[in-house]
Amino acid sequence: MKQKLSVIKIGGNVIENKVELSKFLQLFAGLDGLKILVHGGGKLATQLATKLGVESKMVGGRRITDAETLEVITMVYAGLTNKSIVAQLQANDCNAIGLSGADGNVIQAHKRPVKKIDFGFVGDIDSVNSTMLTKLLDTGLTPVFCAMTHDGNGQLLNTNADTIASELAIGMSELYETTLYYCFEKKGVLMDVADDDSVVEHIDLGTYQRLLKDNIIADGMLPKLENCFHALNKNVSKVCIGHPAMLYSENELFTTITL
Amino acid sequence: MKQKLSVIKIGGNVIENKVELSKFLQLFAGLDGLKILVHGGGKLATQLATKLGVESKMVGGRRITDAETLEVITMVYAGLTNKSIVAQLQANDCNAIGLSGADGNVIQAHKRPVKKIDFGFVGDIDSVNSTMLTKLLDTGLTPVFCAMTHDGNGQLLNTNADTIASELAIGMSELYETTLYYCFEKKGVLMDVADDDSVVEHIDLGTYQRLLKDNIIADGMLPKLENCFHALNKNVSKVCIGHPAMLYSENELFTTITL
Repeated sequence: MKQKLSVIKIGGNVIENKVELSKFLQLFAGLDGLKILVHGGGKLATQLATKLGVESKMVGGRRITDAETLEVITMVYAGLTNKSIVAQLQANDCNAIGLSGADGNVIQAHKRPVKKIDFGFVGDIDSVNSTMLTKLLDTGLTPVFCAMTHDGNGQLLNTNADTIASELAIGMSELYETTLYYCFEKKGVLMDVADDDSVVEHIDLGTYQRLLKDNIIADGMLPKLENCFHALNKNVSKVCIGHPAMLYSENELFTTITL
Repeated sequence: MKQKLSVIKIGGNVIENKVELSKFLQLFAGLDGLKILVHGGGKLATQLATKLGVESKMVGGRRITDAETLEVITMVYAGLTNKSIVAQLQANDCNAIGLSGADGNVIQAHKRPVKKIDFGFVGDIDSVNSTMLTKLLDTGLTPVFCAMTHDGNGQLLNTNADTIASELAIGMSELYETTLYYCFEKKGVLMDVADDDSVVEHIDLGTYQRLLKDNIIADGMLPKLENCFHALNKNVSKVCIGHPAMLYSENELFTTITL
């Protein structure tokens, strides 16, 4: 039987609140079993860019990453955010190791080809080095990923944290029984966006089609759910969407997604 | 017989010149045997601090590290500099992994006690986790260290890169036959600072005492040589000081230091 592995993605809103982050990391450190953490950190990068006079250009919620912006996100994602998370996990007896995709060559990507929009130094993932990640996990380490990859030719690339989480879960699913957790400020997929407790507790392909048809799924949730079904189609066992509390509280409502 | 391990420190002047750095990394990648790279990055941090309006205070060549300065160096050392070095080494088929002392808990330190001067978030090293570093080396990885440690209680600390290099060499010397290389812009310890070719090729304790007595050793070189003899007294096999070219060219002059 395969060992279980949790791939947990936390969003910017948890990272930007120091108290929330510290509380989350304490509880994350205590979670049983093998685990990988993936973090975003978008707003902090925007703040630093503003201070440095680097313009932040977003298209459809995605950052256009020119050379200057790439430097800013490398500083914030791989430096400030990643290392402060690692140091806090160490303080909670979790032997964390901070990684970009370049470290140990764990995630290779290619620069997104220019079609209608030139996203700049944005990477689409080609491969996850599950052998190296397994060795790190076997060493007792908990990998902590920032949202950066590399192209193998010396170029760092900005890659969406949700995508990194799903590709890691997919890449590891041959060797592990993998569950992917998307943590954000809401309790899950909501029937009514105005009602935080209207959580759809279980979504399978049939439910998904009905929710789509009835326009229940809001714009921001669409790419997330597409990511989820992509992961499930590629052998990830289960995907959960909800507040970080779903990881450690038994009474928490959240959304479970299966095929 | 112990395996050989090279701990190689490169200074700010190599890092700040993109062409020099790229040339160095290509040659470093090709070096035979187990190796660890340690990099500084001081001037880039000063430049970012200036852009952000954070004052850089130096006392005796050491940076006073308040909370804002710590954020700046975390961004530059652990983010921008470390990850661009790692990505370039990967491009040269060297399986590099970027580390601060917090990652894998590899270097623990304590905040320097306030005596005459309050250095702020500066760390003096307590321990090097040679077991973890050996596991990473055994996995085929080449650790690349930035000049940061942590205190085990969640606090990142700024630690001099020369000191990180010597403490790593010392910490690994129980398990490996360790050579420590300090690379900088000169060819080694010079008899005459105005003559770049007046390299003292071999320094032992006797030579060191004579050079000190004759005031041959310039101010900047004093703490470096003290570091060298400290390392040699703690079982490091050999220390070399010189231009990076000493690592791969047979005809290069450089200084070898032994007890």
